[in-house]
Amino acid sequence: MKDTVLILSGGLDSVTMLYDYRDCIALAVTFDYGSRHSKNEIPFARYHCDQLGIEHLVISMDFIQRYFHSSLLVGGEDIPEGNYDDENMRSTVVPFRNGIMLSVAAGLAEDRGLKAVMMANHGGDHAIYPDCRPDFVAAMDRTMEAGTYQRVRLLTPYTRLTKADIVRRGHALGVDYAQTWSCYCGGERQCGRCGTCTERKQAFADAGIPDPTVYQS
Amino acid sequence: MKDTVLILSGGLDSVTMLYDYRDCIALAVTFDYGSRHSKNEIPFARYHCDQLGIEHLVISMDFIQRYFHSSLLVGGEDIPEGNYDDENMRSTVVPFRNGIMLSVAAGLAEDRGLKAVMMANHGGDHAIYPDCRPDFVAAMDRTMEAGTYQRVRLLTPYTRLTKADIVRRGHALGVDYAQTWSCYCGGERQCGRCGTCTERKQAFADAGIPDPTVYQS
Repeated sequence: MKDTVLILSGGLDSVTMLYDYRDCIALAVTFDYGSRHSKNEIPFARYHCDQLGIEHLVISMDFIQRYFHSSLLVGGEDIPEGNYDDENMRSTVVPFRNGIMLSVAAGLAEDRGLKAVMMANHGGDHAIYPDCRPDFVAAMDRTMEAGTYQRVRLLTPYTRLTKADIVRRGHALGVDYAQTWSCYCGGERQCGRCGTCTERKQAFADAGIPDPTVYQS
Repeated sequence: MKDTVLILSGGLDSVTMLYDYRDCIALAVTFDYGSRHSKNEIPFARYHCDQLGIEHLVISMDFIQRYFHSSLLVGGEDIPEGNYDDENMRSTVVPFRNGIMLSVAAGLAEDRGLKAVMMANHGGDHAIYPDCRPDFVAAMDRTMEAGTYQRVRLLTPYTRLTKADIVRRGHALGVDYAQTWSCYCGGERQCGRCGTCTERKQAFADAGIPDPTVYQS
C-alpha cells in the first residue's frame, strides 16, 4: 500500500531505499537547503522518481543557507578531507537538519492522509550526526505520532545497516549507482577525497561490488 | 542569562511570553507560512522586539502555503466562526505546524550555541491541535535534546495556563494588548466572530481586564 513519504536526497542510501520500498512510497521529497552539492543530487533524485513513476517534490528551505552555518552549505568553510568518522567532519553538520526535514515530511504526510515517513539514515551516520542516532529516531517517531491526527510514524529500516549492506541490497535490486551523488564538494565530478567520497568508495570495496563512479581523482 | 529562542507570532500568548521571559530570550523568531493574518501579526512581533531590544528574525516558509491545506492559509476555505473548541475549528489546523517551527528554532539554537527553545502553547490549545498537547511537547523536548550536540531543551511554561491566566500575567507586566493580533481572518480589524477572536474576548472577560481591542463587529 502506498502510504509513505520518503526523504530522498539523490545519494546512494535514499536512492536504494526508493527502489527497496517502491511499493510503499506515495511521495518522495527532496529538500534544497543550499548545500554545495544540491545541484548535483537533485537531478538524480528526480531521475529515479521518473524511472519508478513516483511523485517527487523539491522543497526549498532558503532560510537554512541564510541563517545556519556549516561547511556543507554554499558560502561555508572548505569541506574537510579524510575519513567520514573523523572529528573534522563535524563542520559538515547542518544543525538539526534531519529534525527539520522530518517535520516537514510529517506535515506533508498528515496533509495527504499518509501513514508514515521514511528516512535512509544508517549505522555509519551515528558517530557524527546526533540527528541520525537511534535515540533521536525513536524520540522523533513519538513526536510525529503525538503531533498528528493520523499518528504518522517514522520508519528507518536501514538504521542498523552499514553502507556496504546498503550497496549490496541496491545492487541486487538493480540500482544504477552511477546515477547517484555523494560528494559534499559539489564539483563537476565527485572529488574522491572528501569524507563522504571516502565512505562511498569504502562501501563498494567492502561490499565486493564494482564502483561505477567516475571520480575526479 | 540570554540563552533561549522564542517562537513569537505577534499574538497575545507569545507576546506575553516575550515580556515575561525577556531576561532569557536571546532571539525571537516569527514564521511566515502564508497565513491570512501574517500581515497583521508580523508587524506586532517586530514592534515588541524593538521595544525590548531583542533580536528578531522573520523566516519565510513558502512551501507550507504551496503544499499544505488549511483554512488558516491564504487561498484556503473560509475561517469558521464560533467557539475555539468546536470541531469546525479543525479546518484551521496546519499539519504539524508546531513540529516544523520548533525544529527550525532548535536548529537556530544549536547554530548559535543557545540552550533552549520556548513556545507559548497553553491549555486551551490542546483540544484541537495535536501539536500543542503535553505528550507532543514532552516528545519534542526529547527529540531536540537527542538531535543536538548542545542538548537543546524545549520550554513551554504556559502549557497548563488558561488564556485568561496569560492575560492577567501580561497585564501585570504592562503588555499593551492593543498591539497584538489574534484574528485568523486577516482583515483590517480583528473580526470579533471567528474562533480565535471569541477566545480572545473571553480571556479578557474571564481575567476581569478591559479588552483594548477594536473589533470589526
